[in-house]
Amino acid sequence: MTKMLQPAPDWDIMQWLNADRPLDLASLRGRVVVAAAFQMLCPGCVMQTIPRMRQVHSLFATNDVAVVGLHTVFEHHEAMMPTALAAFLYEYKVTFPVGVDRPGERGDPIPSTMRRYAMQGTPTLILIDRFGRLRRQVFGHIPDLQLGAEIMALIREARSDIPTHEEGAASAGTEAASDCDDRGCPV
Amino acid sequence: MTKMLQPAPDWDIMQWLNADRPLDLASLRGRVVVAAAFQMLCPGCVMQTIPRMRQVHSLFATNDVAVVGLHTVFEHHEAMMPTALAAFLYEYKVTFPVGVDRPGERGDPIPSTMRRYAMQGTPTLILIDRFGRLRRQVFGHIPDLQLGAEIMALIREARSDIPTHEEGAASAGTEAASDCDDRGCPV
Amino acid sequence: MTKMLQPAPDWDIMQWLNADRPLDLASLRGRVVVAAAFQMLCPGCVMQTIPRMRQVHSLFATNDVAVVGLHTVFEHHEAMMPTALAAFLYEYKVTFPVGVDRPGERGDPIPSTMRRYAMQGTPTLILIDRFGRLRRQVFGHIPDLQLGAEIMALIREARSDIPTHEEGAASAGTEAASDCDDRGCPV
Amino acid sequence: MTKMLQPAPDWDIMQWLNADRPLDLASLRGRVVVAAAFQMLCPGCVMQTIPRMRQVHSLFATNDVAVVGLHTVFEHHEAMMPTALAAFLYEYKVTFPVGVDRPGERGDPIPSTMRRYAMQGTPTLILIDRFGRLRRQVFGHIPDLQLGAEIMALIREARSDIPTHEEGAASAGTEAASDCDDRGCPV
Repeated sequence: MTKMLQPAPDWDIMQWLNADRPLDLASLRGRVVVAAAFQMLCPGCVMQTIPRMRQVHSLFATNDVAVVGLHTVFEHHEAMMPTALAAFLYEYKVTFPVGVDRPGERGDPIPSTMRRYAMQGTPTLILIDRFGRLRRQVFGHIPDLQLGAEIMALIREARSDIPTHEEGAASAGTEAASDCDDRGCPV
Repeated sequence: MTKMLQPAPDWDIMQWLNADRPLDLASLRGRVVVAAAFQMLCPGCVMQTIPRMRQVHSLFATNDVAVVGLHTVFEHHEAMMPTALAAFLYEYKVTFPVGVDRPGERGDPIPSTMRRYAMQGTPTLILIDRFGRLRRQVFGHIPDLQLGAEIMALIREARSDIPTHEEGAASAGTEAASDCDDRGCPV
Repeated sequence: MTKMLQPAPDWDIMQWLNADRPLDLASLRGRVVVAAAFQMLCPGCVMQTIPRMRQVHSLFATNDVAVVGLHTVFEHHEAMMPTALAAFLYEYKVTFPVGVDRPGERGDPIPSTMRRYAMQGTPTLILIDRFGRLRRQVFGHIPDLQLGAEIMALIREARSDIPTHEEGAASAGTEAASDCDDRGCPV
Repeated sequence: MTKMLQPAPDWDIMQWLNADRPLDLASLRGRVVVAAAFQMLCPGCVMQTIPRMRQVHSLFATNDVAVVGLHTVFEHHEAMMPTALAAFLYEYKVTFPVGVDRPGERGDPIPSTMRRYAMQGTPTLILIDRFGRLRRQVFGHIPDLQLGAEIMALIREARSDIPTHEEGAASAGTEAASDCDDRGCPV
């Protein structure tokens, strides 16, 4: 089983918090991007993803790794507006940039970036290489040991190392649940 | 060091969630009340208090113990309105009654019930005996083993057991911090 | 479903550690006894039971509660001799009395006290009331909240409160496994 | 502050468990070596190091990473003989090779390999690169995220990447304590 490496879809962001100006993938080229799609009322995101992303943010050098949150709200929209998100980020001491995903069109509850990546729910972890290509997308969580190893593999990757095809690998713990649980919220 | 046992102050609640009709201490007389004041954006409340209160709710018989949440918002008011709270309770699977504390008057950021109890911040744990008297109030957390023992002591208490004076006891881990941390949010 | 309350079987102990003289149930009459049967090489005992018993030992008054360990070795006997146990207790900062269960006779791998209580494996938690009667025996673990409540219920029990028959209650998480796992070691 | 990269000292092992034949650094050349010095009665080793090393062993490919335990006993020698160690490894499901460090000469309580590495206590984590050079030695623990990243950095290292001098880096949480605690046992 092989797959082509594809460019990561552009993000479609309505508003950025913790950022001086809008971020896009083009401007992050040259760095590894560790992005997490989350909702501020998703228990698995709050208990696991946010602390883990804060740790990634503090461990790796800014030159090597850009940590980004994507607030992909697909339920309880009125409870998770940008004002509420700003309060959440303050209380949870999140200092990396967080983009508010653009609401879906024509009544689609799934916001735009979430739709482009065909995410299954929140949290979703995304790893993008220095060349802007999507290298990992997983609904749910991976262990810290594995996450550290995967990020470092992308950091240390030279252009010549990069496969044009990649072997498929099984993702652990990514099955969808019927509703939010301690791990996350499926669409 | 001794203190008189005093009736617990009445709650001043604007709106109840997960309840058919308003609750007050008089109507809970005869049961032990385990109440937790919290804010939905307080990390220590979310990570520790809410799971612990859910466990108390499932472990003890309803005839013996009433579990109650008090949403005592003293910061980020606009982000923690009742609509947002309802979504929070749904996602965190909270099924016990939660009262929204009445906002303070004349610009006081501290809400009414929080003021009456002179709480230092969130979370605050409150134990009230079968006679409506305040037996324990602690800012922060106590270990599960201790909480289970204290609740059962109140359950098993006969009228004749109750001291009219109570020895003071040191509370562990209740010091105030200067801002929200993993344990809670001081006023 | 009801059962008669029975006296707890006497312990059959070869040697006591952390004790000036041998302990027996008769000498503990009047106090609640919280006993844990364990093996020093049982992962679930080491990771959960030992820390929990240390916490019970520090939380409750000595007049009310006697905490006792029972070293019930049924496998790897040569690796868990009393000398090794003494080193284990020192390193894990166990200061409550621990009795070494007497080896089984005629090649029986199950030691004597373990046999008398018909324990299913280690860890086994045992609660004995002030009158020397066995009130609770569970293979595996119960949550701290529940343990605290059950101990306090026995502490506060007056002679007149005690049922001569007790309703059966389901024990959570006590099923036997086929070998040691994170929870414990079945016989 | 810079330091020369030095070859890792050879191990001085009396007996190997979980191995068909003796291991030495020369035979592991070409692979990254993740070694942990531990004692089977050191709480920090048991609760943190052993589970972490098992996870390293299952996550990384055998061709890339060799996981090795070093049983460096410097106290309670009689309680941690190879027979007891074998039972410990069985119960804790450790399947990677573990070498028993050779006892010190002339009454030295510090065993030989521990002395060669000038370890401060147990646990000690050791990372050795594909060229047999000592790249990391830390008394205590490092977070999983960081450990995963450091191992992968060594895996991906090409000969040309390797510094002949390395900048010093502060190690977190490595201070010695006066006795065993939850983190480990200083010499």
